[in-house]
Amino acid sequence: MLGASRTTFYQTRAAGKALLFQHSARAAGGRSLVAGTTSTTKTMALNHTRSMSTNRAKPALVSPFMRRLALWTTGTVGLATLGYYLAGDEIEAFDREEPPQELRLIEGKTFKDYPIVETSLRDDGQRRERLVILGSGWGAVSILKTIDKDAYDVTVVSPNNYFIFTPLLPSVTVGTVEFRSVLEPIRRIIKRIHGSYIEAAAVDIDLDNKYVLVEKPGEGRAWVPYDRLVVGVGAQSITHGTKGLEFCHKLKTITDARSMRQHIMANFEQAALPTTSLDEKRRLLTFVVCGGGPTGCEFAAELYDFLSEDLKHYFPKTIQDMVRVVIVQSQDHILNMMDSVISEFAESEFGRRNITVLTNSRVQQITENSLIYTTKHLDGSIDEHAIPQGFVLWSTGISLTPFTQLLCDKLPESQRNRHAITVDCRLRVKGVDDGSVYALGDCATVEYPHLLEHINELFTSAHSKETTDITRSEFSLFVQSAAKAFPSAAGHLQSLEKNFSHFDVDHNERICRSEFKAMLEYVDSKLTALPALAQVANQEGVYLGHALSHLAHLHQTGALSGQMGGTDELVAVERSKAEEVAVQPFTYHHKGTLAYLGRAAAADFGEGRAYRGSNLAAKYLWRSVYWSQQVSLRTRVLLMMDWFKELLFGRDLSKF
Amino acid sequence: MLGASRTTFYQTRAAGKALLFQHSARAAGGRSLVAGTTSTTKTMALNHTRSMSTNRAKPALVSPFMRRLALWTTGTVGLATLGYYLAGDEIEAFDREEPPQELRLIEGKTFKDYPIVETSLRDDGQRRERLVILGSGWGAVSILKTIDKDAYDVTVVSPNNYFIFTPLLPSVTVGTVEFRSVLEPIRRIIKRIHGSYIEAAAVDIDLDNKYVLVEKPGEGRAWVPYDRLVVGVGAQSITHGTKGLEFCHKLKTITDARSMRQHIMANFEQAALPTTSLDEKRRLLTFVVCGGGPTGCEFAAELYDFLSEDLKHYFPKTIQDMVRVVIVQSQDHILNMMDSVISEFAESEFGRRNITVLTNSRVQQITENSLIYTTKHLDGSIDEHAIPQGFVLWSTGISLTPFTQLLCDKLPESQRNRHAITVDCRLRVKGVDDGSVYALGDCATVEYPHLLEHINELFTSAHSKETTDITRSEFSLFVQSAAKAFPSAAGHLQSLEKNFSHFDVDHNERICRSEFKAMLEYVDSKLTALPALAQVANQEGVYLGHALSHLAHLHQTGALSGQMGGTDELVAVERSKAEEVAVQPFTYHHKGTLAYLGRAAAADFGEGRAYRGSNLAAKYLWRSVYWSQQVSLRTRVLLMMDWFKELLFGRDLSKF
Repeated sequence: MLGASRTTFYQTRAAGKALLFQHSARAAGGRSLVAGTTSTTKTMALNHTRSMSTNRAKPALVSPFMRRLALWTTGTVGLATLGYYLAGDEIEAFDREEPPQELRLIEGKTFKDYPIVETSLRDDGQRRERLVILGSGWGAVSILKTIDKDAYDVTVVSPNNYFIFTPLLPSVTVGTVEFRSVLEPIRRIIKRIHGSYIEAAAVDIDLDNKYVLVEKPGEGRAWVPYDRLVVGVGAQSITHGTKGLEFCHKLKTITDARSMRQHIMANFEQAALPTTSLDEKRRLLTFVVCGGGPTGCEFAAELYDFLSEDLKHYFPKTIQDMVRVVIVQSQDHILNMMDSVISEFAESEFGRRNITVLTNSRVQQITENSLIYTTKHLDGSIDEHAIPQGFVLWSTGISLTPFTQLLCDKLPESQRNRHAITVDCRLRVKGVDDGSVYALGDCATVEYPHLLEHINELFTSAHSKETTDITRSEFSLFVQSAAKAFPSAAGHLQSLEKNFSHFDVDHNERICRSEFKAMLEYVDSKLTALPALAQVANQEGVYLGHALSHLAHLHQTGALSGQMGGTDELVAVERSKAEEVAVQPFTYHHKGTLAYLGRAAAADFGEGRAYRGSNLAAKYLWRSVYWSQQVSLRTRVLLMMDWFKELLFGRDLSKF
Repeated sequence: MLGASRTTFYQTRAAGKALLFQHSARAAGGRSLVAGTTSTTKTMALNHTRSMSTNRAKPALVSPFMRRLALWTTGTVGLATLGYYLAGDEIEAFDREEPPQELRLIEGKTFKDYPIVETSLRDDGQRRERLVILGSGWGAVSILKTIDKDAYDVTVVSPNNYFIFTPLLPSVTVGTVEFRSVLEPIRRIIKRIHGSYIEAAAVDIDLDNKYVLVEKPGEGRAWVPYDRLVVGVGAQSITHGTKGLEFCHKLKTITDARSMRQHIMANFEQAALPTTSLDEKRRLLTFVVCGGGPTGCEFAAELYDFLSEDLKHYFPKTIQDMVRVVIVQSQDHILNMMDSVISEFAESEFGRRNITVLTNSRVQQITENSLIYTTKHLDGSIDEHAIPQGFVLWSTGISLTPFTQLLCDKLPESQRNRHAITVDCRLRVKGVDDGSVYALGDCATVEYPHLLEHINELFTSAHSKETTDITRSEFSLFVQSAAKAFPSAAGHLQSLEKNFSHFDVDHNERICRSEFKAMLEYVDSKLTALPALAQVANQEGVYLGHALSHLAHLHQTGALSGQMGGTDELVAVERSKAEEVAVQPFTYHHKGTLAYLGRAAAADFGEGRAYRGSNLAAKYLWRSVYWSQQVSLRTRVLLMMDWFKELLFGRDLSKF
């Protein structure tokens, strides 16, 4: 029977198409994929024969559904293969069955009116240094993934018992990706290091006694003692004093994403009601995004995809034609933190997709049904406009949360930044002398040492004793030594060498002190704050995970203990200094910024290297980057499944 | 390289295990599966070799993860093959791209203060009879799936824009199955028949003018005119006058399932807090189910699975030991609508799993933190008990919704049932003379003709003219003819034949009139109301879909029009009578009831045939039955993916 079908198969017009699949699968997946694909092709041929005989399928073309099914099968077989290679430690953790460490209150002991929490002893009857991590975002999770499993007794405190893969939140709002696929339970992550978790938020801190007060609203408070504390609680949206923000959505948590999703579907269903007036339909289908950063742009792009790929099949034509997406941006370009090539590309792509971009515009007020904004023109004149809206997303800059504000207020001397906690280049909070408190991610900003502060020693070391100026060859040596001393400035220092003649104002082939000062000022100006990106938090977390493991190792082997003496406080400060020497400073490597623009994607890899593409390849490049950044095999598999689901069946339309 | 690895493979101790997979895959899936599986086995062998050399895996056994991965790969390849065979009409609908029919208000025309909605013309410029379906549950969707696509202009009115696969709701609450996998957007279902959808609920009806008033809360009301109306709006929980139901969960909608899910996870996280007292922990982890029907039992079973398979890895041991599940049942057995063998099996299985079953117990009152119930003892004495609780599910019987109550109130003569709309055996609402209103599912109860009402003609036709009694041979003939006239009673009539001597009280081998009366009373008593099950609504919907298609065909071909004349009202009544003759009555075929009991399942196929099994096979039997009942390929694939996800990674722990 198989033979007969095969003959029919090669006679049908579908044969060419089927062979095409086989070919592309071979090209894409290599040897191990071919077996699976061939069997699928055969099955498809069989099916096709069956369909032909019962007149159920169109004979001329392979249907879009079958094409998607073939893609999907190939993909899942590939995934199963790849999955095991990527699994690593996780499988090890999975195969381990013991439950997590227990937390309890210290009986009969309180501190400032609240009870104190302690971890139970380890299996070996010992305790490690207590590492308390506040937050469950990128920074916290990157530490948990990299830290040695026996280095500390780790306790994670976070109001959400899951980590969110934030870059995919815009995809979740329209249903391209399932809510659960961007979440990883924090209890699964801490299983590897045998840590414990408290579902609560930090509300106060005692830096002298090393206690952090945690609270679960309505359920009481307790002090958690720490030896080292990591603050990774993130930030909140900046308001710019705009009125009516209660009518806006924010996109920070999974609950935000869900309420956005429900709001979008509710608007479409309401607009589809025959009783809704035309004006009201137009209002309901006007989606406004305040802020032209990656989140805002990606949300606009995903919304466009949802409309053009899914809703068009299921909602009447008149409804589809009324949808309008507007981006309000205060700068003169969207995606202005990326290369200008990319900003322009994004604007032109959005233009083709009927996504209106309002640049140089500032939102003044939001009411229940409208949004008022002002536009600044080139001649300096300012117009005020009002647009009716059915949905507003507020995605602008960031500022301090109440807890990080409180922490900064306790260190008035050292903490002067209004938007983040200032940390040194080893991510230690400035002003905490014993170096026991770290901060990272959106809530922290790294303050690198200014070269200008060290001008005297730098200049002295740069030129030979005989001269007062620096020659070109001396300058090369200087750049090399300074790059080692100030790794964060290394890139910019190296660029100085090429621009030697630019800074050599009097063209005497020597750099005098005033020229040297101008150079250092230039480098300092380039050392701006790191952007509030997932990859920054991630790199900081990985750095801190390794650094903390290293320190624990040094302390356990006694390598650092020799240098200490005096009072407790002095010991702590000396210990901190010893640690400073032992740990290299953090340096950030920008791996590029990526933005999805609706069937197009743009990437900025820094140093002028930009990529943009407006085809399926760009979309899948974008997806594969995010896929590779997943924190667990579980979310990788879930994401893969979601994308295949979307490919096969489109996005879900349920108002849920 | 492949050859070398293969050699190693056959030398490793994993070889036996790997071959086992190959063997089972061959047995399960036949020819087309083997290709995929063999390639996986090879890959696994490669991976295993790699792991061995880097010392990453335990050498002695194939890890649980790898076992699951292999199962998963085999499953997905099988699924892809099976998927296409099951796809049928759906793929056809998928490949069709036109948007749905549009609805608009009739300009300048109102009825009783509200506007009127009409559908736009079809592509051929014509209109069909307007079929309005209220509801989007089992009954409504079964009609939509079976009705001819060109028979009617169909409008669906429902407050939820999705169908829920209700039997899997208990699985959703603990995360075995994803929320979205039990939902099918109603707009996808109506696409095949090119119908339209209104997101609203019916609030009033004008039976004379054939208008139904629909309302979206806060958005206004409109009249929807119909030629035929189907009421499939379901039912609401019966309260039995119990106080404090606001503290209970109900499990009817997907929103209910989500709030249950969040409540369960919140209780576990709160119990894990060190600040929570022991008593409070015990209270939080006491889950009470009121009602021992399938929903209640399956929820208890799923909760047990969640605890024993997932939470034990991630929550401290003390927390696990405190969990208590209690079922409060007013009857003397749980699952009392099923065979007694099954009730007893369920009770013993639950006993083994530490699920407490309180029979003969009635809930009196529920407060925020406790539940008060009375237990009736065999001697008639009644005790009152109170238990602290952290979670209560209320899953008891059903009663009328406000709309169905209103419909019944409009037909006081014919509608006297307090729990459901009474319909005749063609599912037409009793009291609506023109037969234009149908009801089905939980909101309807089928009233079969009572045999006793026809005793005179039945008795006369049964015995020969010469005698006054019925002989045994005459009785056989009577049973055959009566079974044809009353198909709903056929089964019970046939059972009479075997019990002839039982009803022949005076043992004279003849049935006299009084004996005949007793017989008919017995049969009538057996014609009880159909249970409120998904399969009843489903069968009713399929029946109605076919019946309505048949009628449309008869009317379009003019086969029924000859017999009409007189006034409009008379025409309608005559038409209804003609239709009655043309359509066979509905008969229900019980296909069995199925219950999942936590790593065990029980099925009652009626007529004393019961199945019970307490192993994995039972679990997968249960799953496969539900899988085959899915209304769309999409939910089938999604469910399959969910079950594989659970197999690979366990259930999600995020409080979402």
